[in-house]
Amino acid sequence: MKAEHVAAITYRGKSIENTHTAHIAVVDADGRLLYRFGDPHRMTLARSAAKPAQALSVIETGALDQFGFDDADLALMCASHSSEDRHIERARSMLSRVHAQESDLRCGGHPPISDAVYRSWIKRDFRPTALCSNCSGKHVGMLAGAQAIGAAIADYHLPEHPMQVRVKRVVADACGLRDDEVDWAIDGCNLPTPAFALDRLARLYASLAHGADTAAARQQPATERGSALARIYRAMTAYPELVAGDGRFCTMLMRAFDGAVVGKLGADACYGIGVRASEQTRRLGAAGALGISVKIDDGNVDILYRVVSEILERLQIGTVDQRQPLAAFHRPPMLNTCGVEYGHTTFPFALQPA
Amino acid sequence: MKAEHVAAITYRGKSIENTHTAHIAVVDADGRLLYRFGDPHRMTLARSAAKPAQALSVIETGALDQFGFDDADLALMCASHSSEDRHIERARSMLSRVHAQESDLRCGGHPPISDAVYRSWIKRDFRPTALCSNCSGKHVGMLAGAQAIGAAIADYHLPEHPMQVRVKRVVADACGLRDDEVDWAIDGCNLPTPAFALDRLARLYASLAHGADTAAARQQPATERGSALARIYRAMTAYPELVAGDGRFCTMLMRAFDGAVVGKLGADACYGIGVRASEQTRRLGAAGALGISVKIDDGNVDILYRVVSEILERLQIGTVDQRQPLAAFHRPPMLNTCGVEYGHTTFPFALQPA
Repeated sequence: MKAEHVAAITYRGKSIENTHTAHIAVVDADGRLLYRFGDPHRMTLARSAAKPAQALSVIETGALDQFGFDDADLALMCASHSSEDRHIERARSMLSRVHAQESDLRCGGHPPISDAVYRSWIKRDFRPTALCSNCSGKHVGMLAGAQAIGAAIADYHLPEHPMQVRVKRVVADACGLRDDEVDWAIDGCNLPTPAFALDRLARLYASLAHGADTAAARQQPATERGSALARIYRAMTAYPELVAGDGRFCTMLMRAFDGAVVGKLGADACYGIGVRASEQTRRLGAAGALGISVKIDDGNVDILYRVVSEILERLQIGTVDQRQPLAAFHRPPMLNTCGVEYGHTTFPFALQPA
Repeated sequence: MKAEHVAAITYRGKSIENTHTAHIAVVDADGRLLYRFGDPHRMTLARSAAKPAQALSVIETGALDQFGFDDADLALMCASHSSEDRHIERARSMLSRVHAQESDLRCGGHPPISDAVYRSWIKRDFRPTALCSNCSGKHVGMLAGAQAIGAAIADYHLPEHPMQVRVKRVVADACGLRDDEVDWAIDGCNLPTPAFALDRLARLYASLAHGADTAAARQQPATERGSALARIYRAMTAYPELVAGDGRFCTMLMRAFDGAVVGKLGADACYGIGVRASEQTRRLGAAGALGISVKIDDGNVDILYRVVSEILERLQIGTVDQRQPLAAFHRPPMLNTCGVEYGHTTFPFALQPA
């Protein structure tokens, strides 16, 4: 970490309040690094930003077809949802489709990401259970995958379970890595969670967008992997409200870009974005689709959203109108308890051509 | 900010999750720098860690005697309280003692620092008002000070109001600074808030402890300033539950050290500690009392508590038993939603002799 890795500074009046260092990678679908800031190869715990790759491993078991999951269900498998009723109810119906009980889930309840949901739970003394976990869609997906490969559902969350052994292989492969280039830890929701070089997260998201490009063009017979990536891209961008929730950054980003961009938060402030091929991605040097990944060193998610929004503006991804709905995340009014503006944020980073 | 300024690293499994840089100053009551980490002179917004100096300016108007405020009231003037009933009720009674109305206050309500209080407010649809602000004691103090110097109470919060002009002079003076060495911004509670070199925050807290030492020894006639500093030290350490609240770090720290240490949080992760003279402070090179100040660059308060606890252990301030109640702040079990331990924190900093 060096001074030149400072990506955001918050000021109170003319004084520096906080500084935040970050790492950024911008790649194309071939994984070629186009722009960088900080250490684009930082070993980074992708957390929930890895969910599309975990969902890919579920798709490749054949579980989606076997259990009749649609794109909305797939979106929830990729979600860090806000525990809104629609999220919990969909997770519940998915669970019944795999003939499992809530007691089979190995994630735990927690205060929801949504403050509105939190308030409603407190008002009615609601104690969240496993289905309320923001990762419940992913967990049901793992139960489905386990059954599709003929494994027991017990201990589906443990690293040595056949389903997680598959997940490890697929995640590494989807990132263009050998198995030994990925480290695994335990996630907040109790599943294994991967750490790998930050640029590989960008590559994963570029491959999602590339999958969508290929599916749209139909110039070549898509590979099975390519079709699965396209399906994930389609699901997440078609149901952005299932991937996060009301007022959340991921939801507003994908809604605003209307199919041109896929994006997903990972806890402790990492982010993955895939941009479908366009004049803009070609101008930036991408052969086709583009991938962006960001990690804020200190894990501050509000700062992450500001930095991601700034990157989209710097790279001129989409139109001014498309980026406008992100303004409240990009430059949130810094108001005190009396509504007086006390400060501002600067972004003293430069995206350097790699 | 440099790599060697990393004070805390959180790990998930064997992978680095987050890194946090910090700055630390350890001084004696003469302001002599004894130990340092990072930039001990970093211009730092002290936020609520400056409250003892703001309270000093109120004391020096004669307002405490004029309005009959006791040590508990003074503790609340120095508080970032949890908006518990006892805090709000004391602020209300202090307000009536200065013959003012809640509508005279220029702070605003906000979600409380205490989650238990937050939950109780939500359950009864309670909308917080000015008296519920964690800074309400300080604001009532300002109303009292304004009246004691014969100024109008209107606009007491504005930088040009005679009371704030006094505050500026007293804060700078208490930190051993010229007026032009302090920058002022607007605080979350709407009062002016100072920024100055971090070591001066340590000096302020050392002077509080030195005041207590002098008052206890009575070897020399205390100055008026010295008596006021001793009074603040006595008030904060006698009523730690009023300075913060149930389960809060400041409260538990001062309670555990039972008069030997004063400590106060500032928002966005800065902290001031004063340690009364002892064998320990002398061993560290202090002529008498000791002062410690810390700023986490990214504003993370949980990390601040871990680092402050680590510093107390490194410097061997107090006994093992006295530091024990801080264990839950120092090395909080890092458990996921299923109660599984997923990681740990390291403190790769060294306090260098200055």
